[in-house]
Amino acid sequence: LLTESQRDRIDVVLVSPRNPLNIGAVARAMANFGFSHLTVAAPYAPNWREARSAIGAPDLLLNAKDTPSLADAVAESTFIAGTGTLTHRKPDQPVISLPNLAPILARQLVNNGRIALVFGSEKHGLTREDLSHCHALIQIPTDDRQPSMNLGQAVAVCLYEVASRTSLNDDTTPPACLTIQEPARPAPRTTSAMLDLLAGVIEQTMAAAAYSPRGMQPANQHDLRVLLRRLAPSALDARRMLGLFRRILWRLDSSHKRPAERPK
Amino acid sequence: LLTESQRDRIDVVLVSPRNPLNIGAVARAMANFGFSHLTVAAPYAPNWREARSAIGAPDLLLNAKDTPSLADAVAESTFIAGTGTLTHRKPDQPVISLPNLAPILARQLVNNGRIALVFGSEKHGLTREDLSHCHALIQIPTDDRQPSMNLGQAVAVCLYEVASRTSLNDDTTPPACLTIQEPARPAPRTTSAMLDLLAGVIEQTMAAAAYSPRGMQPANQHDLRVLLRRLAPSALDARRMLGLFRRILWRLDSSHKRPAERPK
Repeated sequence: LLTESQRDRIDVVLVSPRNPLNIGAVARAMANFGFSHLTVAAPYAPNWREARSAIGAPDLLLNAKDTPSLADAVAESTFIAGTGTLTHRKPDQPVISLPNLAPILARQLVNNGRIALVFGSEKHGLTREDLSHCHALIQIPTDDRQPSMNLGQAVAVCLYEVASRTSLNDDTTPPACLTIQEPARPAPRTTSAMLDLLAGVIEQTMAAAAYSPRGMQPANQHDLRVLLRRLAPSALDARRMLGLFRRILWRLDSSHKRPAERPK
Repeated sequence: LLTESQRDRIDVVLVSPRNPLNIGAVARAMANFGFSHLTVAAPYAPNWREARSAIGAPDLLLNAKDTPSLADAVAESTFIAGTGTLTHRKPDQPVISLPNLAPILARQLVNNGRIALVFGSEKHGLTREDLSHCHALIQIPTDDRQPSMNLGQAVAVCLYEVASRTSLNDDTTPPACLTIQEPARPAPRTTSAMLDLLAGVIEQTMAAAAYSPRGMQPANQHDLRVLLRRLAPSALDARRMLGLFRRILWRLDSSHKRPAERPK
């Protein structure tokens, strides 16, 4: 079972939830399974903190974080897992079936990892854009004929699995296809904010280098975010890459501004 | 994973649910995990079949069974598991932690077993009387500080566990304390209705034999139901016991009516 310190490093993030009663139900399920960090990104209704459905968890709702975007919500996280079903799309991220999640999360919690479990809105779940902030997609194994779950129930099922199965002492080794972001030597983990910073500098570099037509930039931006999460650089590696691209960018910009210094 | 035939032999039973929205949420979770047999015992509100929360599952709600009591709801079942937490009481039944349930259910499904998963009302969960109809209590491992779950979320968590973990091919042997009602040779399973019939005849026999004061009869009734489920007689054994007690009862009654024939 999870220790207090491990639970303390797992955030539940809701993206644009619409119904305050569902947000309250999420808070209740979190309290049921011993989790306390809720973040609501870009909420739809303003009055969600008063949801009566948060039975036994009004404080959790009052202390929840409220961020303008998913990027802000997961900025401090080192491993971000979106949730959903696979009916309508083929995601860019590795897919983990919920019953296989425990050993993966346990490894991500080592070395002060901080995990975000991200849930989409009731209307359409996580978008492709939302998923580009995620390292993996957790698939809840629902029936093909009725895959869409109620938000509060989806959160309850995921937290039950995480709370009752995750264990650092779990010596079951997951299949090779499921081992993601696992450095041979433990290295400091990279926050999402750091990856976003790196992606931003790389994008500027691409633009400065006229890497691709302006029309392609949103697609590149998406692919880049997905790529960085797939690569999963350590914090040190990310800082190195950032230094490199800043240097390149500075050179590109200055060469642009001072054509005399452009290399021949 | 469960086969269609196995899913078809698992009933979800709600005892006196109060809020139709919760009943609808239960139906939705059942559809999500591929279950279709819902029974509502002694419902509180009359209009529950129209619950709007049964998204993707209106037919399931329309086809649900409606019984006056829990005994009627589980009459055809051969293994009945109540659900709840253990905060306030020590149950008479064996307790199974939800994460350990799968191999037990798999064995109960062999040989045409029919399983009922029973959930209590939102107000107070299953009563001691309700539990006396159960062979075991499934404990959802919730946090001690906030053990009480929303009904729809509790059902979702249990069905997720059953649907994604139960497998007849699962060769993990449960710990000895968890192996209940497992005959060495497979014998036809006993329905709850048969056990109730047997209990009724035994009670009459006890009364006819003036076994205990009238004031003790409710307590005896409860203990007897619990005892029969703990013993878990096969259908054949139950029929034998029934025959025996009917015979004893007939003798007691006739000896009472015809004092001349009473043995000296």
